[in-house]
Amino acid sequence: MNNRIVVIGANAAGAKAAAKARRTDPRAEIVVLDRGSFISYGACGIPYYLSDTVKELKELMSTPVGVVRDRNFFSKVKGVSVRTNTEVTAIDRTRKVVRLREGGGEESELCYHKLVLATGSSPLVPPIDNVTLDDVFTVKSIEDAELLKERAVPGAAACIIGAGLIGLETAEALQGKGMRVTLVEMRDQLLPGVLDPEVAAVVEKQVKLQGVTVLTGCAVTGLDGEGRVQQVIAGGRQIAADLVVLAPGVRPNVALAREAGLAIGVTGAIAVNERQATSDPDILACGDCCETTHLVTGRKVFVPLGSTANKQGRVAGINAAGGAATFAGVIGTSILKVFNVNAGKTGLTESEARGQGFDVETVLSPAPDRAHFYPGAKPILLKLVAERGTGRILGLQAAGEGAVDKRLDAAAAAITFRANAEQLSQLDLAYAPPYSAAMDNLIVAADIMKNKLAGHARGISAREVKRKLEEGDDFILLDVRSPAEHGEIGIAGAKLIPLGALRERLEELPRDKEIVAFCKVSLRGYEAQKILDAAGFADVKFMDGGIMAWPYRFRDQ
Amino acid sequence: MNNRIVVIGANAAGAKAAAKARRTDPRAEIVVLDRGSFISYGACGIPYYLSDTVKELKELMSTPVGVVRDRNFFSKVKGVSVRTNTEVTAIDRTRKVVRLREGGGEESELCYHKLVLATGSSPLVPPIDNVTLDDVFTVKSIEDAELLKERAVPGAAACIIGAGLIGLETAEALQGKGMRVTLVEMRDQLLPGVLDPEVAAVVEKQVKLQGVTVLTGCAVTGLDGEGRVQQVIAGGRQIAADLVVLAPGVRPNVALAREAGLAIGVTGAIAVNERQATSDPDILACGDCCETTHLVTGRKVFVPLGSTANKQGRVAGINAAGGAATFAGVIGTSILKVFNVNAGKTGLTESEARGQGFDVETVLSPAPDRAHFYPGAKPILLKLVAERGTGRILGLQAAGEGAVDKRLDAAAAAITFRANAEQLSQLDLAYAPPYSAAMDNLIVAADIMKNKLAGHARGISAREVKRKLEEGDDFILLDVRSPAEHGEIGIAGAKLIPLGALRERLEELPRDKEIVAFCKVSLRGYEAQKILDAAGFADVKFMDGGIMAWPYRFRDQ
Repeated sequence: MNNRIVVIGANAAGAKAAAKARRTDPRAEIVVLDRGSFISYGACGIPYYLSDTVKELKELMSTPVGVVRDRNFFSKVKGVSVRTNTEVTAIDRTRKVVRLREGGGEESELCYHKLVLATGSSPLVPPIDNVTLDDVFTVKSIEDAELLKERAVPGAAACIIGAGLIGLETAEALQGKGMRVTLVEMRDQLLPGVLDPEVAAVVEKQVKLQGVTVLTGCAVTGLDGEGRVQQVIAGGRQIAADLVVLAPGVRPNVALAREAGLAIGVTGAIAVNERQATSDPDILACGDCCETTHLVTGRKVFVPLGSTANKQGRVAGINAAGGAATFAGVIGTSILKVFNVNAGKTGLTESEARGQGFDVETVLSPAPDRAHFYPGAKPILLKLVAERGTGRILGLQAAGEGAVDKRLDAAAAAITFRANAEQLSQLDLAYAPPYSAAMDNLIVAADIMKNKLAGHARGISAREVKRKLEEGDDFILLDVRSPAEHGEIGIAGAKLIPLGALRERLEELPRDKEIVAFCKVSLRGYEAQKILDAAGFADVKFMDGGIMAWPYRFRDQ
Repeated sequence: MNNRIVVIGANAAGAKAAAKARRTDPRAEIVVLDRGSFISYGACGIPYYLSDTVKELKELMSTPVGVVRDRNFFSKVKGVSVRTNTEVTAIDRTRKVVRLREGGGEESELCYHKLVLATGSSPLVPPIDNVTLDDVFTVKSIEDAELLKERAVPGAAACIIGAGLIGLETAEALQGKGMRVTLVEMRDQLLPGVLDPEVAAVVEKQVKLQGVTVLTGCAVTGLDGEGRVQQVIAGGRQIAADLVVLAPGVRPNVALAREAGLAIGVTGAIAVNERQATSDPDILACGDCCETTHLVTGRKVFVPLGSTANKQGRVAGINAAGGAATFAGVIGTSILKVFNVNAGKTGLTESEARGQGFDVETVLSPAPDRAHFYPGAKPILLKLVAERGTGRILGLQAAGEGAVDKRLDAAAAAITFRANAEQLSQLDLAYAPPYSAAMDNLIVAADIMKNKLAGHARGISAREVKRKLEEGDDFILLDVRSPAEHGEIGIAGAKLIPLGALRERLEELPRDKEIVAFCKVSLRGYEAQKILDAAGFADVKFMDGGIMAWPYRFRDQ
């Protein structure tokens, strides 16, 4: 008998592993088992199917040229046998067999030489009261989406619990169907774990502008209703809800692995080495069910993503078929589009970096995403995080209506290769006015970072400025914008001296008092700091990111 | 007297150098001299001003917040004195003075402690007959654009000589004004020196679709007309022209430097070290007038670009003011938008790499720029170039209607850090369906490259297939697409066996004859190769990039 490779799970990672195993060993018998009836669909496309952005289910299950990746496709094209509606109930590692039940029938056994676990992840269901009421949904499978689509009635109230990637994408989908949507998040910001608060504020502003009610810092304790859900109990208040979507995150499906005695990692996902092998060398794992290595911290992380699942599936498939491949790890890149905002990160956020013990410097840099004179230029905010001392770039966050993805991708490559701020600032990025300013946003941010790391530029955060104002600190908040800009939107208590007049009006400012300069984005603020430094002022800083990074304007003003 | 820094040239590099010198040394006297009357404008914006995409000249000369960067701005904000209409006629390095003539008046002298040359570049004027006729233009300065705008009359005939970046941008601008545009290029492709032929073909197709007449392989020998130009003589034919634009490239302005005895590099531009210092340590140079180092080859190159000019200006300014900064070099990244096509490259093209003696492997990978099911997905073609043996990525080219810039930027970072194909294939790029497929185009190209470098995948170019067909080679050209795709567009002489039927129809193919499989993009072609390999066929390859990379379809078919 030829080598038999059994793959459990027929979506991103499992399908990729099977296809790659076939190419590696043309003679192996390859069997893929999946408990569902849909296979090889793009789970990341579910929110778009929900919103009718993707009209037909089969689009999610097709190749780019429109061939549906069904059992027949896998059999004819890939030479892989797929058995759907087939649940694996146990793995017997001693005998090297899996026990399975097909279509609810009798249990049978299938032996393997190599086994690939691609069991995926499941939506977390939070431990709250009455979570089993009707019309309480999760968004993970095609079946979920079909049910939710039926119940998404215009004018009805939807409450989404959890403001992560899936929660936000679902909020947009349901808002687009005419529902009244409330987004409830336990943490005090959207996208916790993905973005730092001041970057998440860009997303929150847009989500609110689109009419979604956002409740942050609001822990849900339970649901209420008779049979069907009617309200959500959160932070002492009651939120009317005709349907509820649970989106607090996902957990890896590790029951089979755990019961078979395979090692589970610190993250709760299946532990694998860089060959994607589990603690049993004849069993590999890939995709959402396993953990991986964060290449910035060197620590194990659980970051389930379709992009990673495909890469790991490739490696697991090659190794299962007797080849040799390795997967190094990830750097935590993620991105989402919600309404007209793009937002994401790569590497570590400031809070993650501090949590890992790094001595951190940050830069906030808002600017148009292409030459400001080129039609269609849209603002984006970058937040760059670097390690003091080494200057090593630890992470980038980006949010705004413009092109954030390409800054994340370039930074992802730079971070992977351990670039420092100097190296990042010299990247030869593709420049023409339709694509960026002559100095790309990423280059500008890296230059500011160099100035900060060298002590030339001294920034303080908008949050810190707000605290100082509230606590009545004795300092000068210096607005160096034009009178017109100052009149349009300002910060109460700021003194106006336009940058162009500053050199002539130095006597209006006290030389020994703390001065915090700001402008729209912080470049003139930095220029003001340099002018005042040169004139012998003792304690001058600028506000990071300028008024564009003052998130309080749409909350408190 | 304080340190005096004199900067010659007040555009990208010079303006940046002056501003950065000021921040580095607050007490220095900084004087910028420019022979023109417009300063600190985005020269890269000229084609967009020409096309009325940018309506007002001052938009090109403003900061992103709308402040015009004029003499007053430099004086008040930057503390820099700018003298326009001031031509420097000589540099006396012994006495450390520049001789200058202001507004056509008497010559005077200005001494310097440090001198920064930012003298820029000028359009090449080709050595052809009657090139001084009226209505023969170059496109470099605002004055050029103003003149050309006046003469760009709807219905009139424009002939553009040179199909590089400026030539193509100008073609679009004039076509947009209703002119009948002919583009004449001496080489046998558009964008020679930027793209390999099969990638340039994507651009050529679109430019032709927009109604521009394209004549490649066509050397212009002269112009003809009485006073005003009336026709272009090229390759024996006469092309009627109411105006002519010369766009064969630019040359660095080095006359001042050469006359002062400064070293001129092998490229013909001013030689500088990594501190941007010329052969005279008190004279620095930056921007289009100087050469730089190509970080892939280590050789000196002349690649004038606004992005590089700003980076070099920063370094020259810091060093002129007594600081310490270095500029490492470039990797030849460039990009343009012409009509609805984006096209560019980073690193080396295949022909550049071969010219430098690299043993080269290439991958052509056409695919949608985001998840194929996401609305608005558009095709792009990637061409990846790597070094055999090491797998080192040498270059990426990209062209198409979709997002090519971000693939170039990510590759630029990877190439800078000397990534190999394995590392490129594992980059943690930002994935969600609006931004890319789960496997980004760049990852797919890198995976194919790995397969090719390992000998698993054997591609041959469309050009080679065409040669084989024309010369009547005895081989099977195997189309593994669906009958519908085959019917829509095909290659004469190809045998159709859809991939899904291939395993069952092996007996229809001879086992010892050369077989070249192809599909739309080459993924099924590769799959077919693997199936036939496994079945014992002796000599199977696939056609790189599939029919999407078959450029002959819109030329010969």
